[in-house]
Amino acid sequence: MTDDTATIDRADTSEFRSVAAATGEPVGDPFPVHGLSDVDAACAAADAAFDAYRSTDRETRAQFLEKIAEEILAIGDDLIVAAILESGLPRARLEGERGRTIGQLKLFAGVVRSGAWLGLRIDPAMPDRQPLPRPDLRLRMIPLGPVAVFGASNFPLAFSTAGGDTASALAAGCPVVVKGHPAHPQTGALVAEAIGRAIAACGLPAGVFSHLVGPGNDLGSALVKDPRIAAVGFTGSRGGGLALLALAQARPVPIPVYAEMSSINPVLLLPAALASRGAALGAAFVGSLTMGSGQFCTNPGLVLAVEGEGLDAFITSATEALLTAEASTMLTPGIHAAYSKGVETLAGKPGVELLARGKLGAGTTCGQAALFTTTAEAFLSDESLGHEVFGASSIVVKCRNTDEVRRVIEDLEGQLTATLHMDSQDEAMATELLPALERRVGRILANGWPTGVEVAHAMVHGGPYPATSDARTTSVGSLAIDRFLRPVSYQNLAQSVLPPELRDDAARDGVPRLLDGALDLG
Amino acid sequence: MTDDTATIDRADTSEFRSVAAATGEPVGDPFPVHGLSDVDAACAAADAAFDAYRSTDRETRAQFLEKIAEEILAIGDDLIVAAILESGLPRARLEGERGRTIGQLKLFAGVVRSGAWLGLRIDPAMPDRQPLPRPDLRLRMIPLGPVAVFGASNFPLAFSTAGGDTASALAAGCPVVVKGHPAHPQTGALVAEAIGRAIAACGLPAGVFSHLVGPGNDLGSALVKDPRIAAVGFTGSRGGGLALLALAQARPVPIPVYAEMSSINPVLLLPAALASRGAALGAAFVGSLTMGSGQFCTNPGLVLAVEGEGLDAFITSATEALLTAEASTMLTPGIHAAYSKGVETLAGKPGVELLARGKLGAGTTCGQAALFTTTAEAFLSDESLGHEVFGASSIVVKCRNTDEVRRVIEDLEGQLTATLHMDSQDEAMATELLPALERRVGRILANGWPTGVEVAHAMVHGGPYPATSDARTTSVGSLAIDRFLRPVSYQNLAQSVLPPELRDDAARDGVPRLLDGALDLG
Repeated sequence: MTDDTATIDRADTSEFRSVAAATGEPVGDPFPVHGLSDVDAACAAADAAFDAYRSTDRETRAQFLEKIAEEILAIGDDLIVAAILESGLPRARLEGERGRTIGQLKLFAGVVRSGAWLGLRIDPAMPDRQPLPRPDLRLRMIPLGPVAVFGASNFPLAFSTAGGDTASALAAGCPVVVKGHPAHPQTGALVAEAIGRAIAACGLPAGVFSHLVGPGNDLGSALVKDPRIAAVGFTGSRGGGLALLALAQARPVPIPVYAEMSSINPVLLLPAALASRGAALGAAFVGSLTMGSGQFCTNPGLVLAVEGEGLDAFITSATEALLTAEASTMLTPGIHAAYSKGVETLAGKPGVELLARGKLGAGTTCGQAALFTTTAEAFLSDESLGHEVFGASSIVVKCRNTDEVRRVIEDLEGQLTATLHMDSQDEAMATELLPALERRVGRILANGWPTGVEVAHAMVHGGPYPATSDARTTSVGSLAIDRFLRPVSYQNLAQSVLPPELRDDAARDGVPRLLDGALDLG
Repeated sequence: MTDDTATIDRADTSEFRSVAAATGEPVGDPFPVHGLSDVDAACAAADAAFDAYRSTDRETRAQFLEKIAEEILAIGDDLIVAAILESGLPRARLEGERGRTIGQLKLFAGVVRSGAWLGLRIDPAMPDRQPLPRPDLRLRMIPLGPVAVFGASNFPLAFSTAGGDTASALAAGCPVVVKGHPAHPQTGALVAEAIGRAIAACGLPAGVFSHLVGPGNDLGSALVKDPRIAAVGFTGSRGGGLALLALAQARPVPIPVYAEMSSINPVLLLPAALASRGAALGAAFVGSLTMGSGQFCTNPGLVLAVEGEGLDAFITSATEALLTAEASTMLTPGIHAAYSKGVETLAGKPGVELLARGKLGAGTTCGQAALFTTTAEAFLSDESLGHEVFGASSIVVKCRNTDEVRRVIEDLEGQLTATLHMDSQDEAMATELLPALERRVGRILANGWPTGVEVAHAMVHGGPYPATSDARTTSVGSLAIDRFLRPVSYQNLAQSVLPPELRDDAARDGVPRLLDGALDLG
């Protein structure tokens, strides 16, 4: 969801330093830059560690994830200070993000212990079946292999070095090679060192985790092309995600890419809700839009409603709130530049009216919020109005009737979320729109705001293309472990040769399995 | 696993007729050929039927699958007669294949009823949680959308019109558009009519299933490119599968392709087994190799063993058995031509020795079996020796020691299966080789033959590239339903708006769900 190619392409590798987000100025000592031989070494180490790591028992792996969480917390305030400097995000947000990062690791420790992800299935032999006997068949999920994870600019902790992709891949039994985001080398280095300490404390092979840093795209390209890498996790811009996808598909052996890329997260204001509380919704909407300078994948970039008094009240209230919205530092100078250009382009589109801009910030990289409006007719005739502007920019689309609302929904690309603001009188309309929304989004929420993604079992942070490159998965929540697994079937294997969890005498500890097609909790 | 481009590219569409596999001659009346407008109409109908079909209750959908099975059986012997003519396969095999096709449909009826595929998850709200309340989150799997299925040449029933891909997609709630294999238009038409009767009997929209037939690749290409198609199932040649994959990836909205393509299915003869029963294994091997003219995706095209008396006995016995192996009609003249060319090419490779050819058949399209041998050194120095020759051709690779066996395994591309022939004294070696095999194959079997794929819960008919285009799934067995599903999360939705199975008062009937992370059988 971000576009910061400008920051990534720093040619002078001898001066790869932290850049203070607030000033755009390099600070501190230069970081050593990794090269292609480091990519090779990291992938070789990951490949060599794979069989040993995937054969660790569940308790060992769970404790390893918990140890990473402990070591990250043990870094103390140095981590928060580095992240504030490099991302420009405020302390409270980063402390919260650290809590979320640790929570994710602990969630996956629990997932690993549960063993449900093993997907155990046993179809016992039927030696007397006619016309042919049935063999003994047993199935389990195994990890795909070493995973390349790309750190995200907008979550220096929760979607980066030890973020969701790393946690779910390690939980699945995959070694991880992280390509750290160039905007936060110091934050990434501190977390990578913490993971290294956890590896040592748990007696695991060092190749279970490697961290590569440097400017430019060469490192990342080489990583995705390395034949030992079996899957890719990415959160970033549409351009970046599609570039990695193309590299992965052009390999002699193509691999899955889980890229979370682009979403404008439509918010639907249904008639009764709009009539009863249009003004209150407008103010609350601006709170969600401008939080963290709007730098969330789930930022509400599109509002849909039928025109009338309710929508007028929403717009008036939102406009007022936006005029006084404070500008805050954006993640990188490149992201700030892309945001400013995106807002300028939208303002120049025929049929698009600027409702308000937020306050100008003090710093050169502060994102000034922007609110636009247009008609359904104009929106439907210019697909560029549906493209993401990463930052605190949103567009209110006035529809003449419910049919136009539906037509705009059906015209949308794939999205991470859709939000319904509704009262009980709106339930029939919500029910009618639900199938069209389900076909286009990964999460449908009511009477809230899409920002704030709960790390939970029933969360989906994903969705149809181009929200992600693979709608069959999620990048947040416990279901994410499935991304990095594939099934293997064992037929008539001797007990001693079978994987331990598939043997007749396996210590099951409540791990569920499908026995002859029926769920067996053992 | 087949290559019959020659047969598919028949330019004269006005004379699209059945071709008798035994003679290569067209027979019967010409079939109407579908055009691009038919592709458009089929996809429009599938798209229009999608929401209605996916909202059918589980019992309705299960009964529909059972009704298809019933209608296929009700066609009677006409179906078998047509399939014999068009495929050249013997009656007993086709009657067995019909039984398997019906069994698959019934298996998926049971899967649909179980409801486990819904993947229900509920994380109840925690309104008092600090610092932020947790919303109510509910998750279910929904079908991807209309699926394009390509009929296979080598299973005119079980992997074609109402085959595994169709059954699993319909079970998941996806309408299906089949592109029938041009080698069996009559067989396909009879099955498609049976599905049509089942749709009518169950009162479902006609667009739930469409059947397109014709020569050439245009129909299939248009189908994969149609924006309303959400996924593709294919069983066929590597070239064909990769062509569809490229089309799917180049779409404005890329879609998943499940292509089962190419595998030589290594058979490992471990030392103790070879010493105790080398000769018996040789004879049994030839039985698996030559069954059905070797036209199985899981045909054993590679044998690996350490040289010595045991392997000599295996080779002597296999050679003798092969010399008397009867030749039988191959599926199409194109497949026969590709097989003959593949055998000829292998015979001309340096370091490859022809051990024996089977009997010459009476017909012009009979496949004459072939057995070769080579050394591990030669095999490792020429990657083309690892390419599939579709038909009854296999190569025995003599290794000097266990290390060479391992090196050959590590050199192999992805495979559907690996077979171990082993005695109890071989268990240590099997255990040592298992991790390398798991990383390369979808199914590992002991003391049997890879041909014969059980339709079961614990089956994996899949494997790493190029065995398939997506190792994360299977094309046979109940797990195949997962291919056509993706997760959607519902946050704070009113009970009346939630999908029925996620409501508090859902009639659960034992459908499992994850409640706050714990399995709940309700």
